[in-house]
This record gives sequence, C-alpha cells and structure tokens, in this order.
Amino acid sequence: DPKLKIFSLNSNKPLAQKISEATGIPLGKISVDRFSDGEIRINIEESVRGAEVFIVQSTSAPVNDNLMELLIMVDALRRASAATINVVMPYYGYARQDRKVRSREPITAKLVSDMLEKAGADRVVALDLHAAQIQGFFDIPVDHLMGAPLLADYFLKNNLDKDVVVVSPDHGGVTRARKLAEFLKAPIAIIDKRRPKANVAEVMNIIGSVDGKRCILIDDMIDTAGTITLAAQALKDAGATEVYACATHPVLSGPAIERIEKSPIKSLVVTDSIQLPEEKQIDKLTQISVGPLIGAAIQCIHNNEPVSPLFSNRFR
Amino acid sequence: DPKLKIFSLNSNKPLAQKISEATGIPLGKISVDRFSDGEIRINIEESVRGAEVFIVQSTSAPVNDNLMELLIMVDALRRASAATINVVMPYYGYARQDRKVRSREPITAKLVSDMLEKAGADRVVALDLHAAQIQGFFDIPVDHLMGAPLLADYFLKNNLDKDVVVVSPDHGGVTRARKLAEFLKAPIAIIDKRRPKANVAEVMNIIGSVDGKRCILIDDMIDTAGTITLAAQALKDAGATEVYACATHPVLSGPAIERIEKSPIKSLVVTDSIQLPEEKQIDKLTQISVGPLIGAAIQCIHNNEPVSPLFSNRFR
Ligand SMILES: Nc1ncnc2c1ncn2[C@@H]1O[C@H](COP(=O)(O)O)[C@@H](O)[C@H]1O
Ligand SMILES: Nc1ncnc2c1ncn2[C@@H]1O[C@H](COP(=O)(O)O)[C@@H](O)[C@H]1O
Repeated sequence: DPKLKIFSLNSNKPLAQKISEATGIPLGKISVDRFSDGEIRINIEESVRGAEVFIVQSTSAPVNDNLMELLIMVDALRRASAATINVVMPYYGYARQDRKVRSREPITAKLVSDMLEKAGADRVVALDLHAAQIQGFFDIPVDHLMGAPLLADYFLKNNLDKDVVVVSPDHGGVTRARKLAEFLKAPIAIIDKRRPKANVAEVMNIIGSVDGKRCILIDDMIDTAGTITLAAQALKDAGATEVYACATHPVLSGPAIERIEKSPIKSLVVTDSIQLPEEKQIDKLTQISVGPLIGAAIQCIHNNEPVSPLFSNRFR
Repeated sequence: DPKLKIFSLNSNKPLAQKISEATGIPLGKISVDRFSDGEIRINIEESVRGAEVFIVQSTSAPVNDNLMELLIMVDALRRASAATINVVMPYYGYARQDRKVRSREPITAKLVSDMLEKAGADRVVALDLHAAQIQGFFDIPVDHLMGAPLLADYFLKNNLDKDVVVVSPDHGGVTRARKLAEFLKAPIAIIDKRRPKANVAEVMNIIGSVDGKRCILIDDMIDTAGTITLAAQALKDAGATEVYACATHPVLSGPAIERIEKSPIKSLVVTDSIQLPEEKQIDKLTQISVGPLIGAAIQCIHNNEPVSPLFSNRFR
C-alpha cells in the first residue's frame, strides 16, 4: 500500500491545514521560497519515493506565481519517484479563458491543463470549475467536487430556508441555482439582462416572482462583484424582503469589497477555496471550509472508492 | 513566401524596438494587460494566419509573469493559425535550475522548455544560455547566439585591449573567458575559490599572472554580484592596475548595484538582454544592444540561412 502524503504550497495554507486535520495526515515537510532574483526555489524535505502524493494549491492571485509553484512542485515530485501525483486545486485560475469568444484569443484554461499533465500530474481534484467542460481538457482523471451542498447547509442551519427564492444572476448559472434550490426545496428565479439599444444601460428583468420573498443569489465565483451587487439591487427594487448571496470562490478583486459593503446584500456566503487577506474578511462575509470535503475526497481516492459529484452531501 | 511578423510582449520592449529597426519590420499590433484579478489578457490585433511569427520576450523578473505571457501568446498564435511560432528569449529564466544538485530538486529549465514546446513553439532563439546543454532540453531547433564578440568589441573600440588579462571568476566559466581572450588576443587567468576548512572563509587563489595588468572579468550573468565583486577585489589585491567586468545578462538582483558601486570594478559592460529600471542604470554600467544581432538572426531564419554561433562576429 503506497504511503499517502499531503504537501501544501503557498497559496492556501490554512485550507491545507484543515485538509490535514480532516484526513489525520500531517502536512509533508517542504520549503517553497524565492531566490534573490524572484525565481521559485522548492525544497522537498522528506522522501516521496513510491508515495501517493497530494499537493494542495489554489491558482488564485498571484495566479502566475501560484501556477509556477505548482508546476515546479509536480516536476520535483516526478523526478523524486513519487508513485502518483495528485493535484488538488480548490480554485482553478484562468478558468474563464475556456473558449475563443473573439478571434485570436488564447484558451488559457486548456494551456493550464496541458502544462499540469506535461509536468507529470496523474490526477486533478477540482471544485466548481467555471465550466464543467474543463474536465475534458484533461486526459487524466478529474474529480469535480461541488460547493452547493455546503452553501445550502449554511442557509438550512441558520433557518434561512423559509419563503426563499434562489436566484441565478444570469442565464449561464441556472443549473447551479437549480441545484441549490433542490437542497432548499425552494423555487428559482433568473435575472435577464438586456440592453434595449446600443449605448443604453442594461435593464435587469427578473423572470419569476420575488416580491415579499427572501432571495438567495448564487454564482460560481464573485470577482469584481459588479453583476451580483446590481442583481441584488434589482431584487430589492422588485420587492425582495432580504437578499443573500453565495458563491464557491471569493475572488473579490478590484472594487469588490466596496461594492458588497454598499449593496443591499445582507450576507455573502463563500468557501475557503481562496485564502482571503484580513482586509477582505468583512462582517458581511462568511467563509465555510471545504477542508472536510476535500479531505474525504482524498480518502476515497486513496481507498479506490468513487468520488461522485454529489459526494459533497455527506459533509453538510 | 510566408509573411514575417514580430511581436513584443512586456518584458523588454526597448530591445524589441531595436530588433524591429534592425529588420525594418514594424512590431505587430498586440495588447497584453491584466484582468482585474491579475490574470493575463492578450489581444492580438492583426491577422497572423499563415505568418512566420517571432515573439520577443525575456523571462527575466517578474519571471513567472513573463513566462506565462509568453506561453499564452504562443497558445493564441497557434490557435490563430500562425504558420511558424519562433520564440526569441534574449534571457532564459530558470536556466540555473538545469540539473539536480541535491535530492528532490526540480529541473525547472527543462520544465520551461517542455511548456514552450507543449504550448506550440516551433523554434527558440536564445543568447548565452547558462549551460549550452539547455539546447538539448528542446526537441525543436534552438539558435544559440553569443554575446562575447559584442563585449569584446566594446573593449577593442575603447582601446582597452592593451596589457589585458581576461579572468574567469570560477572554473565553470573558463570556456567563456577563452572565447573573449581570443577576440582580444589576450591571456587568461582563473580564480580558484577554496574553503581551507569547514566554517572558514573562502580563499581566492588566482591562477595566472595579473600583477601590473588590466583585468577583464567575464561571466554569463551578474545576479547578486557577490562573486564578481569579490573576484575584482582579489585581482586588485594581486596587483591588477584596473578591473573591468562584463557579462551578457544583467540580472542585478538584491544587493547587486550597491556591491558594484562599492567594488573596485571600474566599469561593467553588459547587453540589453534584460531591460533595467532607471535606478539600476548607474554610471559604472554600459549596456550594449543585441538588437542588431537578433535582428540578423531573424533574417537568416527567414531566408533559410544558417545561424552559426559565431555569427555574432558580423555585428562587432
Ligand atoms: N480573469 C478574468 N476576469 C474577467 N474576465 C475574464 C477573465 N478571464 C476571462 N474573462 C472573460 O470572461 C468571459 C468568459 O466568462 P463567462 O462568459 O462567464 O464564461 C470571456 O469573454 C473572457 O474574455
Ligand atoms: N535563480 C537562482 N538564483 C540563485 N541560485 C540559483 C537560482 N536558480 C538556481 N540556483 C542554484 O544555482 C546552482 C546552479 O548554478 P551553477 O552552478 O552556476 O550552474 C544550483 O545549486 C541552483 O540551486
């Protein structure tokens, strides 16, 4: 039976610690720092020969540094004769560059998958990929976990599932909203953004009834928070009593925090797929850990048991 | 005949401009910037279908950002049906991680070559790679240019080739020193660092005679400038009248500038393979452009003529 080892790189050490606690496996000894000129220096400080290795690294900002750390670590493990190299990416950077919208665009999400495979990754564990199609970019197995059950659980535990409508902020997110609505046994609504004419502000039409209801907006990630905060205002204007929002990945770049503070959103529930600096941990924000979920996925993989997408149910 | 196009990414635009001037080919229209969360956004703003494309990018600091820009650009060009994708890397980052010195080290220089090939590069043009063996990391053609003739030319033109000894700061650099010495018709000396006992300071022995001579130290890169400034002091102590230093790549990280300022080095001659911020362009530093050299290499490649390592001779 190969020895199970878990290593954390620099992007999300608190989550790696929680995964370690969930599995009961201490994090492997490693040092990841920089040479004077900024090049990454990795020292794996214990044997990995023949081991089943899991690396925990979110490719959140600074995305290029975090991605290179990951690739260099995979290279070092392969050359050190690790038996299998499993890459745990709670947040998959560049996921939105997953298709050519205009001419001469790159498909960076595919470049990332190619790089990981070429470096020597044997398996990827991901969480709410921006598009499920990204699984197909890989020729190696991808276990795709879902945050929705954990987010649903927050609303259930806090008795926020009465008189509720789950709202998708756009057409693309309806499947995700339906999943959450199933857990909450709630109806759904959809926000339909339309630009009546060129150079005229978008109008937010709400499909479904929200008047007098508590609304829960759901998205896969909140980046600049423009869409979600405008959607929250539109729901308020349409008579919603309270607006909550939830998302798996708290990217929260640029004006995000300011927008959320100013918006009618009462509370934003996210996971710890991305480590947030102190100044982004505002009162309105609740972070739920995916550590136990990922820890259980690692145990399943180790025991050759299936990791189903609904697997997450067990961790509510 | 495929159309020749040259694009510059962000790491060294002044050099790309010089390459453009040397070839008479204007730089292609492109925008390379960032999304709000720091992910790289590349827009190629002219057709590249069927074109013979050259990308100019040094993977100097910030190395991970510059490398990702390059990989994403190669991906975009390949998907936009460029006929051939030629990567011009005047400085090749991570070149010093070219072998396992200790257990469980990565070989990041090989990871970089694998990534470039996987992304779709058809050819690489490099300049004074830290180890010539890095050429063998690629399965695609690599044209390896030499800076030594240009550096030699500086000393010849400034009448600094009389009573001269070319000095290698370590054993590894003797071949490079011999090459410069040939151009200057000068003898060579070698600095032999020895640690007499553990935990005792290194002693610098000089092999060869430098007393009463003008010394020219040569290395492939100057990073923190520790070696070169200690070597310069040792040469002074051994009776050298003047100490010059030259290197192809001005990495100049950490304490480099301060050390050079304080050292007995009279003048440090480097190329523009790496773009230097204002504060590093000190009086003691002279930058010689490799623009004409690289421009000529591009013309040769375009005309299916050989690019020999000594090719550089023509640009003295
Ligand atoms: N990091 C990013 N930040 C903002 N927009 C992005 C980013 N990466 C890609 N995009 C754009 O987002 C769009 C895809 O998002 P979506 O339609 O939600 O799948 C494309 O038009 C991309 O150009
Ligand atoms: N960016 C870097 N800065 C300083 N040292 C490095 C860097 N990258 C690799 N090295 C180390 O430099 C040594 C190789 O340099 P060399 O012996 O000159 O080829 C190895 O021991 C590497 O660990």
